[in-house]
Amino acid sequence: MWSYQAPLRDMQFVLEHWLQAPQAWSRSPTFEALDMPLAVQVLEEAGRFSQGVLAPLNSSGDRQGCRWTAGQVSTPDGFAEAYRAYVDGGWPSLACAEALGGQGLPQLLDAALQEMLYATNHAWAMYTGISHGAYLCLKAHAAPWLQARYLPEIVSGQALPTMCLTEPQAGSDVGLLRCRATPEGDGSYRLHGNKLFISGGEHDLTTNILHLVLARLPNAPPGSRGISLFLVPKQLDDGRANGVHCDGIEHKMGIKGSATCSLIFEGAQGWLIGDANQGLAAMFVMMNSARLHVGLQGLGHVEAAWQNALEYAAGRVQMRAPLRPDGVLAQVADPILYHPAMRRVLLELRTTSEGLRAIGYWAAHLLDQAEHAPDPQAQQRAGQLAQLLTPIIKAFFTEQGFRQASNALQVFGGYGYVAEFAIEQTLRDSRIAMIYEGSNEIQANDLLLRKVLGDEGRAFGLLLTELRDEAEQGGEWAECAGFAAALGNLCEVLTVVVSGIRARAREDSEYPYRAAGDFLQLCGVTLLALAWARAARVSRALPEDDPLRADKLQSARFFFNYLPSRVAQYRVAIENACEALPFV
Amino acid sequence: MWSYQAPLRDMQFVLEHWLQAPQAWSRSPTFEALDMPLAVQVLEEAGRFSQGVLAPLNSSGDRQGCRWTAGQVSTPDGFAEAYRAYVDGGWPSLACAEALGGQGLPQLLDAALQEMLYATNHAWAMYTGISHGAYLCLKAHAAPWLQARYLPEIVSGQALPTMCLTEPQAGSDVGLLRCRATPEGDGSYRLHGNKLFISGGEHDLTTNILHLVLARLPNAPPGSRGISLFLVPKQLDDGRANGVHCDGIEHKMGIKGSATCSLIFEGAQGWLIGDANQGLAAMFVMMNSARLHVGLQGLGHVEAAWQNALEYAAGRVQMRAPLRPDGVLAQVADPILYHPAMRRVLLELRTTSEGLRAIGYWAAHLLDQAEHAPDPQAQQRAGQLAQLLTPIIKAFFTEQGFRQASNALQVFGGYGYVAEFAIEQTLRDSRIAMIYEGSNEIQANDLLLRKVLGDEGRAFGLLLTELRDEAEQGGEWAECAGFAAALGNLCEVLTVVVSGIRARAREDSEYPYRAAGDFLQLCGVTLLALAWARAARVSRALPEDDPLRADKLQSARFFFNYLPSRVAQYRVAIENACEALPFV
Repeated sequence: MWSYQAPLRDMQFVLEHWLQAPQAWSRSPTFEALDMPLAVQVLEEAGRFSQGVLAPLNSSGDRQGCRWTAGQVSTPDGFAEAYRAYVDGGWPSLACAEALGGQGLPQLLDAALQEMLYATNHAWAMYTGISHGAYLCLKAHAAPWLQARYLPEIVSGQALPTMCLTEPQAGSDVGLLRCRATPEGDGSYRLHGNKLFISGGEHDLTTNILHLVLARLPNAPPGSRGISLFLVPKQLDDGRANGVHCDGIEHKMGIKGSATCSLIFEGAQGWLIGDANQGLAAMFVMMNSARLHVGLQGLGHVEAAWQNALEYAAGRVQMRAPLRPDGVLAQVADPILYHPAMRRVLLELRTTSEGLRAIGYWAAHLLDQAEHAPDPQAQQRAGQLAQLLTPIIKAFFTEQGFRQASNALQVFGGYGYVAEFAIEQTLRDSRIAMIYEGSNEIQANDLLLRKVLGDEGRAFGLLLTELRDEAEQGGEWAECAGFAAALGNLCEVLTVVVSGIRARAREDSEYPYRAAGDFLQLCGVTLLALAWARAARVSRALPEDDPLRADKLQSARFFFNYLPSRVAQYRVAIENACEALPFV
Repeated sequence: MWSYQAPLRDMQFVLEHWLQAPQAWSRSPTFEALDMPLAVQVLEEAGRFSQGVLAPLNSSGDRQGCRWTAGQVSTPDGFAEAYRAYVDGGWPSLACAEALGGQGLPQLLDAALQEMLYATNHAWAMYTGISHGAYLCLKAHAAPWLQARYLPEIVSGQALPTMCLTEPQAGSDVGLLRCRATPEGDGSYRLHGNKLFISGGEHDLTTNILHLVLARLPNAPPGSRGISLFLVPKQLDDGRANGVHCDGIEHKMGIKGSATCSLIFEGAQGWLIGDANQGLAAMFVMMNSARLHVGLQGLGHVEAAWQNALEYAAGRVQMRAPLRPDGVLAQVADPILYHPAMRRVLLELRTTSEGLRAIGYWAAHLLDQAEHAPDPQAQQRAGQLAQLLTPIIKAFFTEQGFRQASNALQVFGGYGYVAEFAIEQTLRDSRIAMIYEGSNEIQANDLLLRKVLGDEGRAFGLLLTELRDEAEQGGEWAECAGFAAALGNLCEVLTVVVSGIRARAREDSEYPYRAAGDFLQLCGVTLLALAWARAARVSRALPEDDPLRADKLQSARFFFNYLPSRVAQYRVAIENACEALPFV
């Protein structure tokens, strides 16, 4: 009743035409051995794993959930076997450096892999979702001996890491955390404290679990400047259990197969990662990767929702439609696919899924370029853009994941509300992504306050240049000129909006906080506009008889007709946010 | 972790000031004994029942759900006892005619009761939610002997009715239903067929269940013109079980304490209600009442979401806010209530809840006037307006129920996603209301195609007159003039939009179908604007030192500042829907 086909054709289109990734790979010494045939082979394998191994465990994992017994957590039936297959397939090491035992493939391919994992089994993919971030964090900040000891286990998938930030009183505000770390004199530390909402804090997929824990050293400054990062393994090298205890798991609305743990650190032994009191900086390496991943969860949900809604709408026959496709005769009732309200929602699902894919993969490609582009200036530019895109991708993608899952559920009517069709599970699973790894409100503040206003407009200027370039290139082709003009216009809107916010903020320092949510949405639809303007333009490179070419043009027309109502909404909302907001 | 206080103060404000209901009651022979003190007493009692009896069963009913065993359904612990208390309190008969054993109170008070039932336990209230509609349907269409036999049981609550429309192949399209009824010669009929998604189709709250069943007579015309309505009791008068069998219940996303049944009719005995082949007309008496009820579910969810989000936001301390209320000093971290994104969402929750309440109660008050106003012209006008409002209330209220529940969940952060706080249950429960009793897409078509375009604008003209009257009256007071002007402007927007749709529809008959969803949203926010313009104006009747007076003005200011972005969105979307929508 729930099906998924890896969207390999569109993934390939994004890699080859939208991003022109092969050209970038051939210019980079790291990736010069990579070409489209090899990339497609990787995607096909990832698709097979997701469809064949993870998708069948999605509903059953939701029904069964995790079980906690005396500190031990059992994951749903099949999860551990699926993890072994994942490790055997070499997936943990996909985008890790060859020097560290990885396959040295770009994060771009990892992003496609992640999309498929999240689309087919979000709960399962929670266990593996932190690994790449932890890898990056250790690589950048851990002492050589700590890297040598633990990186190989992460790269191979032998151990799974966690990210231990939240405490009962410290969620969005990590500055309030109380977990303590006291030096032992031998280079190690003893950790004491409670951590909450720790995904994969305890499970039966691996023998060891590597907790990355934020805690305070003795006499650390208060707030977020007094936080340090520690690696605390579940199991010590002499085989003893470390002093970490899972005292319960949450009963949640969704991702029920993912163990969300409450952990108690009772003198657990750990080692500092990076410098004392610099824990947040080290953690942010991990967090930025995690935020892109969370955005890809949104994309995965939209894609799964779109595929399943389309299939249902094609098969369900109810009432006569006011119009039918050419050549289709009137029957007693038509497939609901023909009804205007359903066409609208299906086209919104499709254009959102394909649009988010282009943008999400672009962000991953920028991360690759930030590290591996031959030219340092190109590296810097890519890094700045990726930083700017991160909060938009986290918040906009996840909101779309939830919104489009709800839209898809509506297509199913009453059947959408029952467990049998699993679209209700997609809706439940998708909701968490708007909250964790920095709530969407935090992302909005990060985007507008820090990355747009706080950066003197540098990174934002790079984005505007991207938009203008695309508008110029698209303008050269008759069939894309309208899209290009709309994109160019949107670029002007953004420019005016940002300078308006900057000017008003001088007299009303709260104003940007009030405008931040709608500003992020406006940036999100702008990125979709970029996605569709470019998709329409580069689809010209496809053979004339390739149906994808017509599909892309048709979708772009729908999108650019649908876009103005959103732009009007957010623009007016940003303007009107200048009025003071009362205290409730 | 989940709390509810009946919003009696605001209910009273709506009755006394917004609707000026006591004046209407005193002019009607039916209600002349009713005054505000008595009405308040009824509301207080209803509040006590909802808070004291239903609210404590909300989470436990969700966790436990219903159990099906060999055709029998057990409801969650406490549900049957709560139903007995409901019957003992006389609540089923509240708005039934005195001549039929009822208390003869207005539907307006019943609407307030329903809001409280749905806010505190949507699943439980599903069992009783159909009763008043069934009462109206039998009263209007059943033969006198059938009324005499069954109406008293419905009025007293001794038996509970169901509404049996849906079949596996016939959801939105009742014309596709196949259930058959064959005459027995003794005035009764034998029914055969399967019905799906029947709320309360089987349960342990009452001994008898009265199924109102749509079925086809032999040689009935095809489609919806060949459908008749039957009363089919679970238990026959000689004590035998009738041929109705519950062969399963659904596992649903929410309202888990409500038994959603699959029923098999195997030669069950039944009696015709109304004329042969006129079943839809008879059923629509019930359906219109049910649609108002479903709208009140949305209101109940928004109110519960608002109360719980406010309580959480006041107690949760995270990060410093950019501004604080006057006199509050900066601490290490502030209640999240002070953060702009949270204030925005809390004000949206509040203004939506209070605005929907005024509109929902207005619709109920119009139904009372349609039956009991002293002047036949006033009766007709009220009936036309109520008909026009019904699809807007069903669709707009339920969408707000879901949207605001999601907004409230976001306020809770990670705690919102765990079962402990039950806001996730509100989100799950609220989702069904967008689907059943005619999906929101069906409501949108009903509104625009049938009730606005198909009615030559008569009922819509009455609504515009209401809006203009309010705009004129509000314009006389300085503090309300801005709201009144905005409402007047919105009235012009609606006029232009409708004449635009009418003109375009002549050349493009599909256009109204494409515009219907956004048109309904535009009407929904217009009704909220009416609610807030009038609330601000009539709040002047409150004593100067009544805090509600300042609250209403502040909320109106927030609402009218927030409104334009929505109007812009829907207006542009309606315009742009003129472009053809491709087939997917």
